[in-house]
Amino acid sequence: MIVKIGGSVLDSPDSLGKFLLDFSSLQETKILVHGGGTVATKIGEQLGIESNYVNGRRITDAATRDLVTMVYGGLVNKQLVAKLNQLDCYALGMTGADGNVVKAVKRPVKDIDYGYVGDVNSDNVNVPLIQVLLLNDVIPVIAPLTSENGMMLNTNADTIASALAIALSEHYNVRLVFCFEKPGVLMDTSDENSIISHLSENTYKALLTLNVFSNGILPKLENAFSALHKGVKEIVLGDANNIIEISNNESVGTTITL
Amino acid sequence: MIVKIGGSVLDSPDSLGKFLLDFSSLQETKILVHGGGTVATKIGEQLGIESNYVNGRRITDAATRDLVTMVYGGLVNKQLVAKLNQLDCYALGMTGADGNVVKAVKRPVKDIDYGYVGDVNSDNVNVPLIQVLLLNDVIPVIAPLTSENGMMLNTNADTIASALAIALSEHYNVRLVFCFEKPGVLMDTSDENSIISHLSENTYKALLTLNVFSNGILPKLENAFSALHKGVKEIVLGDANNIIEISNNESVGTTITL
Repeated sequence: MIVKIGGSVLDSPDSLGKFLLDFSSLQETKILVHGGGTVATKIGEQLGIESNYVNGRRITDAATRDLVTMVYGGLVNKQLVAKLNQLDCYALGMTGADGNVVKAVKRPVKDIDYGYVGDVNSDNVNVPLIQVLLLNDVIPVIAPLTSENGMMLNTNADTIASALAIALSEHYNVRLVFCFEKPGVLMDTSDENSIISHLSENTYKALLTLNVFSNGILPKLENAFSALHKGVKEIVLGDANNIIEISNNESVGTTITL
Repeated sequence: MIVKIGGSVLDSPDSLGKFLLDFSSLQETKILVHGGGTVATKIGEQLGIESNYVNGRRITDAATRDLVTMVYGGLVNKQLVAKLNQLDCYALGMTGADGNVVKAVKRPVKDIDYGYVGDVNSDNVNVPLIQVLLLNDVIPVIAPLTSENGMMLNTNADTIASALAIALSEHYNVRLVFCFEKPGVLMDTSDENSIISHLSENTYKALLTLNVFSNGILPKLENAFSALHKGVKEIVLGDANNIIEISNNESVGTTITL
């Protein structure tokens, strides 16, 4: 099970505490991938580093690169590791750069120069290293950073989680869980009870034509179906608060299959 | 070989570049331990966090703890890892908290409250994890942080390096190299040519009575002899610039044995 958590969990000590307690109790082999954007924005403000976004992606100049390296790879990653170890969850924090676990290339400049941003794909995951860690009961906790040519690169956490899931699918039965601020994919974004409990690709395509999905969820769904086509068995989009139920295959969140 | 580097290398891009190139070429099984104090002080100033020291140790309040977690565990550690990987040196960055590689206890408050500072000893090194990494050709790059009770703790890099060296001495023939701002232990601190090439414990005790050693070098020497008494075979104090010569047992720096 690969679980990705983002701002909705990380920004609330209570939610995070509950999530980590639940996560540490999960019996399956597991990997945690995290974001940290709002923490980076906050500390960036204190340092006079402005956050600029294009299409939802942070423009990463050299100062921002150092900022996210500190915040994602240091502050957020180590806070998670320290708390998990306190819960006897044998966590080891890393970025994609560590042990070349997820290699990247700096995003080529086309219309927009995103700066020090890494693009990853599943062919560049160091599966043997992850296997060694998992075989030794280590739980990798992965920050959204990679490196190329000696430089750290800001890298989307969803994409890292997907690349890991795809690469590990050759060796494991991978479930990929994206935790986000909603309880699942909604038919009506204003109604949190309108969760689509199961989304197949056919249903997805049909709903696409009806413009059901918000701009926020669309990249996650595209990412999810792409990962399924590359070998991941099942993807769940849901609330970090429900991670135990998701692990138990109870009907919470949105389960996505081909 | 366990190599500890501090500010004298980290603060100069040229020195660091040369050191990392040399370090990556060393053939022995190796571990790198690093500091980062001056970088933390600089970023702390930008964040309005004042650096306070007592007896050469940083007083670590909650803001300083988060600062050093960011800087040591994030910025400095990942810059080293990214640069080493560029040199095909298969580096994996970690803190003492990661995989509980070096466990610590928060320093008890006696006369002085050092705050979130970790004390380590060699009994609390996770030797099996390090062995797994080394067996898989991974080069651990270790930041001076540990954790206890879910909280990160600022931890002296020299002490971490010593604890690792002592613990690993049961399984390996460990050489521990402390790189610092001098070419070795000097008979006369104003004369960089007055290097003591070999320092045994008897010579050390004799020179102690003559007040040869500065306050800067004394804790390093005490730390060194303590590690030798606990099983480390040989300790070298020298210049990071000479790491290849040190590795080749050429007569540079100060070699310390019992």
